[in-house]
Amino acid sequence: MKRREIFAVTAGAVAGAAFVSPAPAIAQGRRVLRMVTTWPKSLPGLGSGAERLAKRIAEGSDGRLDVKVISGGELVSPAESFDAVADGRADLYHGAEDLWPGKPQAFAFFAGVPFGLTAVEMDGWVRHAGGQDLWDALGASYGVKPFLAGNTGVQMGGWFKREIAGPDDLRGLRIRMPGLAGAMLRRVGANPVSPPPGEIFPSLQTGAIDAAVWYGPWNDLMLGFYKVARFYYGPGLHEPGTAISVGINLALWDSLPAGSRGVIENAIAAENSYMLAEFNARNAAALAVLAGRHGVQLRRFPDAVLHALGTAAGEVVAEAGNADAFTRRVYDSFLAYRSQAIAWSKTAEQAYLTARLLPFKYGEPA
Amino acid sequence: MKRREIFAVTAGAVAGAAFVSPAPAIAQGRRVLRMVTTWPKSLPGLGSGAERLAKRIAEGSDGRLDVKVISGGELVSPAESFDAVADGRADLYHGAEDLWPGKPQAFAFFAGVPFGLTAVEMDGWVRHAGGQDLWDALGASYGVKPFLAGNTGVQMGGWFKREIAGPDDLRGLRIRMPGLAGAMLRRVGANPVSPPPGEIFPSLQTGAIDAAVWYGPWNDLMLGFYKVARFYYGPGLHEPGTAISVGINLALWDSLPAGSRGVIENAIAAENSYMLAEFNARNAAALAVLAGRHGVQLRRFPDAVLHALGTAAGEVVAEAGNADAFTRRVYDSFLAYRSQAIAWSKTAEQAYLTARLLPFKYGEPA
Repeated sequence: MKRREIFAVTAGAVAGAAFVSPAPAIAQGRRVLRMVTTWPKSLPGLGSGAERLAKRIAEGSDGRLDVKVISGGELVSPAESFDAVADGRADLYHGAEDLWPGKPQAFAFFAGVPFGLTAVEMDGWVRHAGGQDLWDALGASYGVKPFLAGNTGVQMGGWFKREIAGPDDLRGLRIRMPGLAGAMLRRVGANPVSPPPGEIFPSLQTGAIDAAVWYGPWNDLMLGFYKVARFYYGPGLHEPGTAISVGINLALWDSLPAGSRGVIENAIAAENSYMLAEFNARNAAALAVLAGRHGVQLRRFPDAVLHALGTAAGEVVAEAGNADAFTRRVYDSFLAYRSQAIAWSKTAEQAYLTARLLPFKYGEPA
Repeated sequence: MKRREIFAVTAGAVAGAAFVSPAPAIAQGRRVLRMVTTWPKSLPGLGSGAERLAKRIAEGSDGRLDVKVISGGELVSPAESFDAVADGRADLYHGAEDLWPGKPQAFAFFAGVPFGLTAVEMDGWVRHAGGQDLWDALGASYGVKPFLAGNTGVQMGGWFKREIAGPDDLRGLRIRMPGLAGAMLRRVGANPVSPPPGEIFPSLQTGAIDAAVWYGPWNDLMLGFYKVARFYYGPGLHEPGTAISVGINLALWDSLPAGSRGVIENAIAAENSYMLAEFNARNAAALAVLAGRHGVQLRRFPDAVLHALGTAAGEVVAEAGNADAFTRRVYDSFLAYRSQAIAWSKTAEQAYLTARLLPFKYGEPA
């Protein structure tokens, strides 16, 4: 791994232009950090979260730090974002840890794996049960310091053109689903495909694909999937809370004064729950529009389908978790936390949410 | 409401000492903010969260701001914390909005009400669905600017000396439970009581009370309730995610430079999810100890009990929500959000958590 020698461009310099020595950047009293993202700028939730994070850092630092957000493809391709930060072409990335090709499987556990942790559980594991130490060690081996920076919360299980009555109905279906969740689908006989985002809608429309998983009601409503697929299945179990992460070039991080590190750390942690709250609120509102105004047929996967998918998920996650010795350490830590989290959730969150569905009267919205 | 004229004591001055003019505080380049809390300093989760918040503000401001944490009872009683910030005896409070005697019922909705919103839903309502605007207006009428600053997540339903097989088993039971949830219990024939925290354990031991709700496994384990009550019921539905809040004297807030406001806002928002994650992780670990090492009998309230409690909760929350015109506006906003949140949760989070409980194989912890 290359060591960065120059950390930031001065204010006013064009991003991506030749590096200048750090001295003038500090002399001007304002440091510009270049943050590459894996999202289009206009993508609500993820793209807007990156923009909001930049604003938080600028405001919290009283102008000492400025973050220039560089959308996916502008400086490097989205998939190159991690390497760009590792080798100093960029200072930070805003993405998800399962998006880096050729990296150890360990990374995927910090984005989310099928039938894994919810958003709050991921926060608990990473921040309070050993996850961050493992992640720091993993990132440090590439020269990157990683942080939890947001979460989509539980997503949806996808738009289907036909109903899924049992596991057999998944056989042969071409379903847009990337990553480990795609491998899970393959194990139950489906055919996971990954058309570019812009081709998902037309592919679904023409029947070139049979189903598509995107994010959740908020993003899905905007793309209009309800116009070309009638059945909207829940829950999303491919990544039950995709964790969004920020990585910072480690040498840069170590070189920053404590105050700047504090500003950046607080801003990222602030955005972590702000983004999750936004997905929760906007998904709830969009679901009402989809089900109410657009007549979308909401469906829950039958238990037999969920069981088959859970079994397949257990297999692909175990395979990923045993890919190498370090990943196995991450997998063990994840499994131990998941086991405790399930027992706690069964007693608390899940039990509460189920209790709240009982048909008692509880006010009427005005 | 009094307007504050002097906002902070200089570094080194003893908290609670005579005010000094703001000029020297600024001239020294360091401003000390006095934060009263409603918790004992040593209370894990809430007390430690207040300490961590102070550290975040100090680090993020690079020493420009320093927060002196003043535990409940040191400067003012916990219940006086809100008024102390409103009238300038303190700069910030760290507490929960249902702890202020004599204030409108509207406040309680920003702490949590029986069968209300989970932590993430509360974040969604306050930050992205109109809650903060209402809360700001409510706080401003007293000269306070409020923020979400943490959450306990779903708690437990309490320690019971006997099993609860149906709603009739609650009749006549003396149960430690404060606030609106106490009123809920009264409606199903129980007798809610509020002994001081230090008397809960001996009261349960002697049988002076029959049951006690404290926080959750993490805090409950430390207090040793398992030694004097055998049955540990879930879920907690009295406040399904108690929101912790920080209030800042509004005139002080308005007077702060944008950079300081940014530091404080990010630090509070950072702590908001950090605390929730800590409760989630520590509760999960403590539940394993209680059920495994101490042989605690975990129980879920029967559906008939949950239905009776839900009906009672709906009544007491409606009564509170109709207490005055402004509270009714808050109640309406809360109900509208709750309704959408339930539909979304049923499709996503709750459906996922239930699916994850299906008996498929998914690795074994090392």
